[in-house]
Amino acid sequence: MRKIHVIGIGAGDPDQLTLQAVKALRSTDVFFILDKGEEKSDLVQLRRDILDAHIPDGAYRLVEARDPDRDRAAGGSAYSPAVGDWRSRRADIYEDLIARELGEEESGAFLVWGDPALYDSTLGILEEILERGAVTFTYDVVPGISSVSALAARHRTGLNRVARPVQITTGRRLAEGFPEGVDDVVVMLDAHQVFRQYADADDDMDVYWGAYIGTADEILISGPLAEAAPRITSARAEARARKGWIMDTYLLRRRLRDER
Amino acid sequence: MRKIHVIGIGAGDPDQLTLQAVKALRSTDVFFILDKGEEKSDLVQLRRDILDAHIPDGAYRLVEARDPDRDRAAGGSAYSPAVGDWRSRRADIYEDLIARELGEEESGAFLVWGDPALYDSTLGILEEILERGAVTFTYDVVPGISSVSALAARHRTGLNRVARPVQITTGRRLAEGFPEGVDDVVVMLDAHQVFRQYADADDDMDVYWGAYIGTADEILISGPLAEAAPRITSARAEARARKGWIMDTYLLRRRLRDER
Repeated sequence: MRKIHVIGIGAGDPDQLTLQAVKALRSTDVFFILDKGEEKSDLVQLRRDILDAHIPDGAYRLVEARDPDRDRAAGGSAYSPAVGDWRSRRADIYEDLIARELGEEESGAFLVWGDPALYDSTLGILEEILERGAVTFTYDVVPGISSVSALAARHRTGLNRVARPVQITTGRRLAEGFPEGVDDVVVMLDAHQVFRQYADADDDMDVYWGAYIGTADEILISGPLAEAAPRITSARAEARARKGWIMDTYLLRRRLRDER
Repeated sequence: MRKIHVIGIGAGDPDQLTLQAVKALRSTDVFFILDKGEEKSDLVQLRRDILDAHIPDGAYRLVEARDPDRDRAAGGSAYSPAVGDWRSRRADIYEDLIARELGEEESGAFLVWGDPALYDSTLGILEEILERGAVTFTYDVVPGISSVSALAARHRTGLNRVARPVQITTGRRLAEGFPEGVDDVVVMLDAHQVFRQYADADDDMDVYWGAYIGTADEILISGPLAEAAPRITSARAEARARKGWIMDTYLLRRRLRDER
């Protein structure tokens, strides 16, 4: 029976791999890497660096494929169906890779940035392939340090405050309004710097922002949102122009009454 | 200058330490371990096992202290002040340990289960000590695999669904009502199995529950909440009676309309 590892490899720092992840890498015959296009080839190289660092004799097979372009133009209510189509196209590619490249007794691996449990499609895609029934395999999941954990660690702050909740959401959701019932919100996948929306409206929020966390390009900015927002916007634009891509995340924290 | 590492050591599986955590362990002179009383001495032993596994020559100093008892009887609105008092008492102990046991040029470490960013008091305590000003040190944070990530990995599920948010909260908060605006809720620190409250009311929720995740005692239960809740309750009671303590967490997932 084919075996697949879905391995969380942390947020960028190769030392953020767990020992469990390293063992899983070393028990893998074939690595599948999907390239999202040239502008993110740094990320493909980072994955290769991780393999070279942890598989000493270089004795691994790497299979690369081109990721289907997600229809980024689709907005608003069209978002989820577009994601669904994209996922099915990706499932086609993964299914084909597994069937063609992975022998019946071999083990393959997908390396996932951060933690496979947070805003990653790999598990859903594997389940879709299994449901189709054309290719069979077993799989396991190795948890990883998410960019959320890495962000909090670098800012040396908790995600929640004592006995209080924290919500993790997307920039798209945040644009629809600040979540109900929470004062600590982590925002991922925000291409539009939605935090600026709250910098104007409120004077009682702090922000903890980070980009390329754990890598040599890491940028960290924190402070009262109204004051930090323009700094983040310009640092983000500059970095994005220089590198051609950016991966960033942030925590918005509304001050509680006794902290104002 | 004294240096302190706050090291996330994962949810129970020693292989869940990151390479960064192992390096931090190896650069530490003195480890501070607070014992929460005999019923949790398994957890103290697990920490010792981790040190023995990763510091090959056993050349480390371990300083143990007794954790102040938190006033667990305090409920409702008295909760946060009780936590505050407990934190200050804990800060007294940490301050004393650092001043007495850590030389000016030495580095110390606190080993935190899971991720120091989630429902852990260590960072707040260190900040409180620094504010007092009697002892000075620098500190850094090494992120860890949280029990939340470990739970999701073992159940091979995501924490969020596509483009949707997830909230992490406490049993106490969940008892006040299901959080607004989210359909995926991770619950920590629930000594009262509050999920049962929703097993009666709703027929459209799934639960993913785990205890002692990543250890030899691991228990995993999942399924429709109404059906799984009694199984969790009895498995939890049995395990707690056998071991004398339990650490568990769960994800409640409300089915979306097209999944019902």
